[in-house]
Parts: sequence; C-alpha cells; structure tokens
Amino acid sequence: MTPSAPTPAYRRLSVEERRTQLLTAALTLFAHRTPEDVSLDDVAEAAGVSRPLVYRYFPGGKQQLYEASLRSAAEELQHCFDEPLDGPLLHRLARALDRYLAFVDQHDTGFSALLQGGSVVETSRTTAIVDGVRRAAAEHILDHLEVTDPGLHLRMTVRMWITTVEAASLIWLDEGKQPPVDDLRDWLVEQFAAALGVTAARDAQTAALVEQLAADA
Amino acid sequence: MTPSAPTPAYRRLSVEERRTQLLTAALTLFAHRTPEDVSLDDVAEAAGVSRPLVYRYFPGGKQQLYEASLRSAAEELQHCFDEPLDGPLLHRLARALDRYLAFVDQHDTGFSALLQGGSVVETSRTTAIVDGVRRAAAEHILDHLEVTDPGLHLRMTVRMWITTVEAASLIWLDEGKQPPVDDLRDWLVEQFAAALGVTAARDAQTAALVEQLAADA
Repeated sequence: MTPSAPTPAYRRLSVEERRTQLLTAALTLFAHRTPEDVSLDDVAEAAGVSRPLVYRYFPGGKQQLYEASLRSAAEELQHCFDEPLDGPLLHRLARALDRYLAFVDQHDTGFSALLQGGSVVETSRTTAIVDGVRRAAAEHILDHLEVTDPGLHLRMTVRMWITTVEAASLIWLDEGKQPPVDDLRDWLVEQFAAALGVTAARDAQTAALVEQLAADA
Repeated sequence: MTPSAPTPAYRRLSVEERRTQLLTAALTLFAHRTPEDVSLDDVAEAAGVSRPLVYRYFPGGKQQLYEASLRSAAEELQHCFDEPLDGPLLHRLARALDRYLAFVDQHDTGFSALLQGGSVVETSRTTAIVDGVRRAAAEHILDHLEVTDPGLHLRMTVRMWITTVEAASLIWLDEGKQPPVDDLRDWLVEQFAAALGVTAARDAQTAALVEQLAADA
C-alpha cells in the first residue's frame, strides 16, 4: 500500500480553499439528503474539521451554508447550458439536456427537496437563485434560436418547456429514474419540437423559426 | 335609497357562519396581495369584526388563517375539474381549463405568491395542499381518458402537462394576462394533444389512446 495523501484537515488551507472544502462537503450532503436531514455536525464530520470551524466560515449556520451550496450548484448547473452555437439545434439541445440530467441524477434528493418546496431552508433568496437558473436557461435557448427579440408566444413556449423539463426531472426521480435517461432526453427534445410546432400555428415568429429548424436539421 | 342590509358584523352568526365569513374575507385579501402584505388587522377590517375575534377563530394567527384559506381555495379549484364524462375529450379539457383560468384570473397575486415559493407562510403543509390539487387534476384527466392503469409514459405526460398549465398560468400573469384567455386555453389544449402525439411514438398505451381520441373528435 502506498501511504495515503494527508487529508485536507491536516493541511494548512487558505481561507478560499477551506471555504471550498466546506462547501464541497456540504453540497455532497445536501445532494443526497433533505436539508432537514443535514446537520452542521455532519458537514464538519464530512469535511474532517470541527463544528466551530464550520461556524467560523458560515456564522449564519446551516441556512447560510445551504444558500452558499445552492449558489455553487446553480453555477455548476449553468455550465451545463454552455454549448457551441453550431450544428443542428436539436442536437445541441440534446447535449445540454444530457449534462442537465446527469446533474439531476447526481443531486437527486437535494434537487427534489429544493424544487418541491416547503423546506425549512427555502427563502426568497433560495427562490431567487432557482429563478436565476431558469432565466439563464431561457436566455441560452433563445441565443441558440438566434432570436434577439422574442415575442410573447415564443417567450412563453421556451419558459413552458423549461418547466416541463424541471417537472420531468422531478417525476423521473419520483419514478425511480425511469425511463432510462437517454429515452427521457430524446423524449424531451421531441416535446420541445412539438411545442414549437403547435405555437407556430399561432405565431409568425415561431413559424419562421420552425421552418429554419427544419432546413437546418 | 333603500335601507342597506345589516352588515354581517351586526348579525348574530353561528360559529360556522362566522368562520366562513372570516375565511371569505381572508381569501379575498390573499387572492390579490402577497401573504406578507396581509395582516390580521386587514382581515378583521375586511370582515367588519375585531382583531381578537379573528384570533378566537384562528388562534394560530395569520399562518393558520392562510392555510385554511388555501384549503378552501384548493376545494374551489378542484370543482373546476368537475366535468361530465361525455362529449369529445378535448372539449371537456377546454371547459375545465376555462374554469381553471378564471380561478387564476380571480386569485392572481395569491396564485403567483403561492406557486412561486419562498413565501414566509409556505410550509410542508401548504406544499401538501398544492400537491393534492395537482394529484386530483391528474386523476381527473386519467378518468376522462378512461385509463385505469396508466403506464409510466402516460402518467408522466399527464403530470408534465399539468405543470405546463401551471407554468403557463404564472407566465400569463407575469405577462399582464396576455395572450387573451381564450387563446391561452386553446393553445394549452393543443399542447396536450401534441404531447400525447409525441408520447404515442414511444408508448403503445398512449398510441392506442391517441387513435381513440382521433376517432372520438
């Protein structure tokens, strides 16, 4: 056996490194348990540090740690949407969805607890973080659609589909991660195309877009 | 001028009548303001009674009154789904949606505050009430589809569409109640038909249903 690397607790970490270490430990715990089931003792134990040290970095206790974890998860989630602006649009959407669904898979319990609401740690701040992710997702999709001035119908269709994806993710977790993630991804892409098709019959901007997508595919 | 009827405050009301009177006043206030902006004084004033009387009926204060109002709104909302089991299915859906959207229109601010989350009055109990309405909506739709044993795909499609309707309602309020409510209703019905169509390509049960719907229309 090779000697194991010193655990983080025994290294002298910078303030930033220590903060990251605590956040990483917290995020792992919040990913797989409801916020109610995570204590600061758990976070201290997972990070291999003392409880007072957790409090020194997060004097607001669990609420502050939860919000910081959520902000860090939100950043990670927004990276899922990074996708080069070329190639067939529905393929780009499928790749972004792959990353998004992998995130959901990796943060299952925390994702459900956050989005199902009613958690004690839910505040207007946590709601604002989640809304920020939704807004970013909508902006990414409109960028990819190369629409700079989306009308009401297109705006609503994109926002409705984002909600559908969110709902599908929750139901998917609820159904024991069935159907298989690749099926779910393709199904959601098809739902988006169908929703655009329905909207196209009511809205000229969407109709032009659907024509362009068909030529592009 | 004819003499005005005595206001409820001067009539001797039964306990049940008084409770209903207070709930009605509270629900009207919660419909058009965020829960944060409603005080027990407002409820007392709107009902024409004293603040101590409101506390006598709702010793848990605003939280208890909010939850009771929400339960009463949830019951009202569930009546929107009552629809005879005959005639073309998409027409039945349109009629139920008409009633649902009228409810959303009448409870605009409260509806948004409730579903957007992060409100101080949100608890696991309020979340459970909202989930109960969603479950009832899904059961109604499956009853109308005459499906007693819905498979995963059909179950998910119905739940996803219910979320779409909810999201559309929130966005519709956010967009100043545009498009006109009749357009929104038809658009949502079309979205449901399109979603079933997409799912039919992946699921035999849904495919059989779509065929039946086409024959039925």
